[in-house]
Amino acid sequence: MEKQNKKIIGVDIGGTAIKFALMDTQGIIEKKWSIPTNISEKGRYIPAEIGSSILSSIDKNALRAVEGIGIGVPGAISSDGAVVVQAVNLGWEQLPLKKMIEGEIGLEACLLNDANAAALGEMWKGAARGRENLLFVTLGTGVGGGIILNGEVLNGCHSAGGEIGHIPIRTDENRLCGCGGRNCLETFASANGLMLSMRKKLEQLGESWTEVTPPIIFKKAAQNNTAAKEVINEFATVLAQALAGIMNTIDVEEIIIGGGVSEAGADLLDPLMEKLEMYVFPSIKDHFSLRKALLGNDAGIYGAGYFYLTKSAR
Amino acid sequence: MEKQNKKIIGVDIGGTAIKFALMDTQGIIEKKWSIPTNISEKGRYIPAEIGSSILSSIDKNALRAVEGIGIGVPGAISSDGAVVVQAVNLGWEQLPLKKMIEGEIGLEACLLNDANAAALGEMWKGAARGRENLLFVTLGTGVGGGIILNGEVLNGCHSAGGEIGHIPIRTDENRLCGCGGRNCLETFASANGLMLSMRKKLEQLGESWTEVTPPIIFKKAAQNNTAAKEVINEFATVLAQALAGIMNTIDVEEIIIGGGVSEAGADLLDPLMEKLEMYVFPSIKDHFSLRKALLGNDAGIYGAGYFYLTKSAR
Repeated sequence: MEKQNKKIIGVDIGGTAIKFALMDTQGIIEKKWSIPTNISEKGRYIPAEIGSSILSSIDKNALRAVEGIGIGVPGAISSDGAVVVQAVNLGWEQLPLKKMIEGEIGLEACLLNDANAAALGEMWKGAARGRENLLFVTLGTGVGGGIILNGEVLNGCHSAGGEIGHIPIRTDENRLCGCGGRNCLETFASANGLMLSMRKKLEQLGESWTEVTPPIIFKKAAQNNTAAKEVINEFATVLAQALAGIMNTIDVEEIIIGGGVSEAGADLLDPLMEKLEMYVFPSIKDHFSLRKALLGNDAGIYGAGYFYLTKSAR
Repeated sequence: MEKQNKKIIGVDIGGTAIKFALMDTQGIIEKKWSIPTNISEKGRYIPAEIGSSILSSIDKNALRAVEGIGIGVPGAISSDGAVVVQAVNLGWEQLPLKKMIEGEIGLEACLLNDANAAALGEMWKGAARGRENLLFVTLGTGVGGGIILNGEVLNGCHSAGGEIGHIPIRTDENRLCGCGGRNCLETFASANGLMLSMRKKLEQLGESWTEVTPPIIFKKAAQNNTAAKEVINEFATVLAQALAGIMNTIDVEEIIIGGGVSEAGADLLDPLMEKLEMYVFPSIKDHFSLRKALLGNDAGIYGAGYFYLTKSAR
């Protein structure tokens, strides 16, 4: 009985906004709010602003029922879960965020990477409900990944577990990645990668469109535009080969695709699934599912809350 | 004290021989022997022959001290560990090997895939001693893999965990793989793949060698033969890109390379490491190790014994 009255807080720190949710241990959200991300002075004000936003948004009585806080961070978390090793977009390096947040509000805090949080969120309340082994992929500005094995996040030995956006792609092209590498998966399979491929194709053909965005590319392909169809076919092929390689390595039961590019829905998932079936190991073929993420921007706050719940239960 | 007197048996079923070891719980081998693999009539005699070999090779007193048996199988094992789903080279399909062996000798048996057994063996007594997170790769006739995360084998949801030999490689070539797919990693990065690449290169150049084997290719490269150097460079590149993709997904601390091609030693590992460092995620770079396997053909019996020990301890 008492457990049911207990609350948790899920926090998702993004590059432009920090999202918060007060929820019960079943994941029913009682209150949801957000504040802008203050990246001034290398993000030094963020921990205090998270603390004060929680203290001012939740009244004292409600706060007494809160057990702890899970926080999704757009960066790498140390193996002991205490330190943000690096979060480039916030300007953080070796920041002891766990201790700082605990100092601000006197509640236990657990940290995890934001893609891992979204993966857990989709498992708890989204497209992967009931699964314990899955690969979550975000196709946004970049390509992010979160891997769940036996219900637990694979953080890795150097906080690089699930960094699937940086799988090297064999190609004659030479695309520089934000990580410093060349031809990483995200230089092809992100929204930016897709737009670059389309612009290159148009240049080859001596054509030009007034605007090149993922929705426009998918729309033109649906209208039978040959160039757009070829670009999407190649996009799906590169992504399917990389995802099949992952499946043949970790062999999970479900792939969840989120992020802006996933809004294309079946126009992306159908060709992707067709190609995946060509490349996965025979024992996996016909025995896994590919789904669009369900929770959108809320995946992170759900997953952060769930992470706290499962970590603190140990 | 009593635990120290206890014994275990490790068994490694190969395509030509079945290897056995009687060892104590510290992995000190007291007796090691092998029998030929009887693949007649779809391998139906193998379970009984394993049983009778154990009963005739270990005297009754010693057998009373044996707690159980771990068995490495060249095929896929069901998630519950009871059934060999498929072992192509033995002719087995849906074989309830655990129950059969337990019936033969009245001791508990645990099954695992042979590459996973070799990975555990290298962790327990070989090149990865003291590690809990590693990728074991065999470069033999094919390419096999075993992944250990937090000390445990990643078997996967469809017994395909670690099937890294079937990661798809992007290429203009069209190499048929034993799995039915095309251009799997093993069609390039195995002994067979290396020899095929060398033969293709020689054909292009209108040259011919009396014999093309991995040791000869490495020897010619060491003698500064340009064609051999180019083929080994491409071999190392394809392998490094695939292994870096795996590292950027599961982020382990060590890669162990075994199998016949690994006998090339530094001639393979040095260029491989150089290329790996180019392709791994920045937080992994300079923070992982690449080593040659140490146990050779004994890795499987050690790992099978260790698997029984750790499984039965639950």
